[in-house]
Amino acid sequence: MKIRVAVLGASGYAGEELLRILLRHPACEIVAITSRKNAGEDVSTVFPRFTGANLKFVAPDAGELAGKCDAAILALPHGTATEFAIPLLNAGIKVFDISADFRLRDPEQYKRYYKADHPAPELLKRAVYGLPERYREKLRTADLVACAGCYPTSSILPTAPLLEAGLATGRNIVVASCSGVTGAGRKVDLPYIFPECNESLKAYGVIGHRHLPEIEQEMAAAAGVDHLAINFIPHLAPMNRGINSTIIMDAAAGCTMEKIGEVYEKAYGKERFIRILKPGKTSDTKYVFMTNFCEIGYNFDEHTGKIILTSCIDNLTKGASGQAVQCMNIRFGLPEETGLL
Amino acid sequence: MKIRVAVLGASGYAGEELLRILLRHPACEIVAITSRKNAGEDVSTVFPRFTGANLKFVAPDAGELAGKCDAAILALPHGTATEFAIPLLNAGIKVFDISADFRLRDPEQYKRYYKADHPAPELLKRAVYGLPERYREKLRTADLVACAGCYPTSSILPTAPLLEAGLATGRNIVVASCSGVTGAGRKVDLPYIFPECNESLKAYGVIGHRHLPEIEQEMAAAAGVDHLAINFIPHLAPMNRGINSTIIMDAAAGCTMEKIGEVYEKAYGKERFIRILKPGKTSDTKYVFMTNFCEIGYNFDEHTGKIILTSCIDNLTKGASGQAVQCMNIRFGLPEETGLL
Amino acid sequence: MKIRVAVLGASGYAGEELLRILLRHPACEIVAITSRKNAGEDVSTVFPRFTGANLKFVAPDAGELAGKCDAAILALPHGTATEFAIPLLNAGIKVFDISADFRLRDPEQYKRYYKADHPAPELLKRAVYGLPERYREKLRTADLVACAGCYPTSSILPTAPLLEAGLATGRNIVVASCSGVTGAGRKVDLPYIFPECNESLKAYGVIGHRHLPEIEQEMAAAAGVDHLAINFIPHLAPMNRGINSTIIMDAAAGCTMEKIGEVYEKAYGKERFIRILKPGKTSDTKYVFMTNFCEIGYNFDEHTGKIILTSCIDNLTKGASGQAVQCMNIRFGLPEETGLL
Amino acid sequence: MKIRVAVLGASGYAGEELLRILLRHPACEIVAITSRKNAGEDVSTVFPRFTGANLKFVAPDAGELAGKCDAAILALPHGTATEFAIPLLNAGIKVFDISADFRLRDPEQYKRYYKADHPAPELLKRAVYGLPERYREKLRTADLVACAGCYPTSSILPTAPLLEAGLATGRNIVVASCSGVTGAGRKVDLPYIFPECNESLKAYGVIGHRHLPEIEQEMAAAAGVDHLAINFIPHLAPMNRGINSTIIMDAAAGCTMEKIGEVYEKAYGKERFIRILKPGKTSDTKYVFMTNFCEIGYNFDEHTGKIILTSCIDNLTKGASGQAVQCMNIRFGLPEETGLL
Repeated sequence: MKIRVAVLGASGYAGEELLRILLRHPACEIVAITSRKNAGEDVSTVFPRFTGANLKFVAPDAGELAGKCDAAILALPHGTATEFAIPLLNAGIKVFDISADFRLRDPEQYKRYYKADHPAPELLKRAVYGLPERYREKLRTADLVACAGCYPTSSILPTAPLLEAGLATGRNIVVASCSGVTGAGRKVDLPYIFPECNESLKAYGVIGHRHLPEIEQEMAAAAGVDHLAINFIPHLAPMNRGINSTIIMDAAAGCTMEKIGEVYEKAYGKERFIRILKPGKTSDTKYVFMTNFCEIGYNFDEHTGKIILTSCIDNLTKGASGQAVQCMNIRFGLPEETGLL
Repeated sequence: MKIRVAVLGASGYAGEELLRILLRHPACEIVAITSRKNAGEDVSTVFPRFTGANLKFVAPDAGELAGKCDAAILALPHGTATEFAIPLLNAGIKVFDISADFRLRDPEQYKRYYKADHPAPELLKRAVYGLPERYREKLRTADLVACAGCYPTSSILPTAPLLEAGLATGRNIVVASCSGVTGAGRKVDLPYIFPECNESLKAYGVIGHRHLPEIEQEMAAAAGVDHLAINFIPHLAPMNRGINSTIIMDAAAGCTMEKIGEVYEKAYGKERFIRILKPGKTSDTKYVFMTNFCEIGYNFDEHTGKIILTSCIDNLTKGASGQAVQCMNIRFGLPEETGLL
Repeated sequence: MKIRVAVLGASGYAGEELLRILLRHPACEIVAITSRKNAGEDVSTVFPRFTGANLKFVAPDAGELAGKCDAAILALPHGTATEFAIPLLNAGIKVFDISADFRLRDPEQYKRYYKADHPAPELLKRAVYGLPERYREKLRTADLVACAGCYPTSSILPTAPLLEAGLATGRNIVVASCSGVTGAGRKVDLPYIFPECNESLKAYGVIGHRHLPEIEQEMAAAAGVDHLAINFIPHLAPMNRGINSTIIMDAAAGCTMEKIGEVYEKAYGKERFIRILKPGKTSDTKYVFMTNFCEIGYNFDEHTGKIILTSCIDNLTKGASGQAVQCMNIRFGLPEETGLL
Repeated sequence: MKIRVAVLGASGYAGEELLRILLRHPACEIVAITSRKNAGEDVSTVFPRFTGANLKFVAPDAGELAGKCDAAILALPHGTATEFAIPLLNAGIKVFDISADFRLRDPEQYKRYYKADHPAPELLKRAVYGLPERYREKLRTADLVACAGCYPTSSILPTAPLLEAGLATGRNIVVASCSGVTGAGRKVDLPYIFPECNESLKAYGVIGHRHLPEIEQEMAAAAGVDHLAINFIPHLAPMNRGINSTIIMDAAAGCTMEKIGEVYEKAYGKERFIRILKPGKTSDTKYVFMTNFCEIGYNFDEHTGKIILTSCIDNLTKGASGQAVQCMNIRFGLPEETGLL
């Protein structure tokens, strides 16, 4: 029997990517796709590539959805996600949330970065952070999965094993990331029109971006400390998809290229969706385009004593929808890569 | 009387940009453009936009050129530049070199990064570093100008005043830069064909890029120390022109946004080609596209104690040809912005 | 004494291009730039590249403007242009309109394509069509210039001389054009955001585009007939600037490559802004990028008896702002290329 | 039992797309991938996205391949394809050729456009044209399939039913196509480097492109005439993938939008990979990106009596590798869409 899946907020780019994946997922059946704006329309009106899929958008109604699905994937704006997660969880539906609503374990951090009290702080404890390579065991029994953000996925995967192993000290960590424009969602705003993005590359949100506390939370956990302060600097680049994160960290005494390679081999040698490059090579967004992979390159700079990592993902796949499906596969006991290769 | 200028190596992108600038420069006359490969052809064969300019490529011949020009701008590959610089200097021609041949003052550094002895180490002392905002006085009397590289220009301009003023300590400096593809020159190689660059963003040369010692040399000079080690990490981005450098530096005790603003005002308040953004704003390559400006944004991150700078130039204008013309204007006593606005 | 110019509607892409040109125009002084939305702001707020230009947007007020300018260039939406043109003309100001308001000589055609009566049909007779290579003499004394549209400029320039000379019959004319996204203006709408335009190429407005009657009007005039029906098919291409028009026409009996070349030589041999390529060559948008040129290539296909033309312009320069300045130069007795090279 | 497939010439873009499709094709097993240049290397060296696929390039050797495969897909340069097709066919292998070697049925046409005698003219009769929507029945028993070219696929599919039904006369047919840069293959040449393609759109091969006789052959067959002369004008557009063909044809007397719609419904109503848009809509390359679909839009222009069609495919999928797999599925009795959705 197939998993019956509802996709809430299916008319954005993450929604489109979810449909692309789920439509060829052999163990899933899409039972509902929601969009307030497009309710009543065939999916092909918004996404012509899905002509023939025979799916209609409906207005989101948690009660109705609860009656007919086993899993709900939320590709909703932050805030709205919580509204729908609560009744769905109460109805026993497994919830996989792509928004940022349940990623921060500390409600104080939420308040600081989102300028509002968290609407359901008790759920923060219940939520499992949806990054399979770090939380696979917990995901097997999770009811509420807070899928890792795009920038955090690309930052945490390469750094966590090194922090855990003590090869990096946790000091002076800089994450400089470049993202394609779909990272901003399907947002209709002057900075995102073609002539403004093309031939443009710029940093934004250099102080206090909302993904910062998420990255710090997971890096601190890996380093075994309560808190850890880093610099995270996102940039917008003129491409559709892809994130490249370049990360500079203080190496601990005794760090070498070989040791870094060994730590990665131990941590990720059997991971299906992580590709560790040969020593000294750098990752490229085009090699993960429309895939669920995270490609990681590493270097050790002797002249400054820094570890330099490069890490690429597709922001819509491993950074959002692919990851949600990977988490769902785990939760429902399927092979993790089902529908993702 | 106009300055008679020869452009050596005029068939690449820096050469094209030089012609674009010089053809409308009111105080210059182009007396020769050289290209071994295109000798004998009209400039419009290679660059149709210059139809009607009535210029023909000639094979480079230092002897002949010496007889008819006052200034020579070298847009030649590194190594070749020195070959031509020597006889031209001997003939009393002012030489403005866009290559990297004369930028490093220490021949040992040259050897380390270029894997060869410098062919004319005595000229390294004679050369003035072609970054007007830092070396204007020396440029007024220079015979050999080593125009600053593209990445170095975008890195040194924002950092030098802060190092000089002691607002930044010189420790843990990270320069993460993204460049458009013309930065690689007009190079015909697999990594540079359109389908390989489009939807691709990647770091390269993360250890020991040839622009690293140049950046370190100038940062050390500004900080008043003999040597300073930094991390410089270039990336290739899918656009034609533009460099964005994002720079993270340890702030000295007592650093504030206001103090940074004051230092910039003092250093660059009267500079024609530097644009300091309002506190907290970030620069954008599109705002310097095809201009000779360097746009600088600054931030102070209290939670890590770091200064964060963003700096954009057009790699072919302020990062190469525009800068050469700016240096030439200074050397010949013209208003610095002549032909550059 | 300089021409005092007001730019109305200066905050769009055509406005930006006008400022870029006028700021270095040696015989013009910008006395006002208007923008309802940005009134009171410095020009650099909207266009950082013009930092230091010392210009402030004002709300448009025809009465006030009339008192201080000799010429007004209107980069306003269609309809609004007429509102301002009338009082400015009454005050003796020379008006150069970039909108479509005065391009059609027949009010019936206007009504058919714009679904409204023309607000000032008497001005249609007074307006001179702003395509210098076709109407130079009339432009010398024109008070109201209806600058040719971008698609029309790229279509009329290559075809008119051949129709006039009888080398093309006027039958079966197809104009297939591709435009960069700035052609849509600085419009904030879903189809124009980066991820929707990138990797996208599509036709639009294939029946009855508003530039169709303008093209037909001028082709008919050239062919010496009352009316002529063609197919004009515009496409949106993933680039910022540039139009390529590929045109297929029935050749008249006896047409040869040589004859086409002769007709062009006679018509355009002395034109400063038209570049006729060697027989068989095709034009490229990149060779006219940010220039006022129209580049034209021609072919004669013996196996179908068709003439095939390719024609490239920069839609913002020769297709809008550059052309307006070229017309203004003519009207004020300046060398036509002033400020445009 | 799975079909054992060999891919010859697997290191180009069509080869990469073949691997992408075949690696998830449930009824195929890749038994060999060849590349002279990369022989001995793992597939991931050239295409990192296939890490873990466990495939090595081998030098092409028809004898060895014949012993272990049921089908061979040739993604080789034209000319080379024939060299390998002959021994493979002799060994009983089914051959699916993506090159142009076997597409023209008339050896005279081959000679005219390829400037050489065809090396195996007897095979031209044996080859079936690999366009399933037109030749499905013949493909079921074909040994040698000449897969339709990219431009021809996008041109023939929309036009053939209208010619066949007599709604279009066959006169004055113009096909204006724009292709992404992968259409040129993975070719390392100056015109294809990023800065030359970006912000560039140009026609090429406007007279006598090699796809012209292929298009004419199939249009003539559909129209039921011996020969038919058209104008085919390809353009290079700044994107990776996708072809848009805009086609203008003389309508026969009595043609209406409704009749066109009916003809398409009858011809393609049950086709899995053809999407006929609602009347008046135009196709968009982004809606077929990385799919095997052909999206067709139609219009009837009463004022000129022309039919206007727009047709989009992904040049690497429906225009090359997807089509080859579709043909192979038919030949081996599999559901046509296997591995292609």
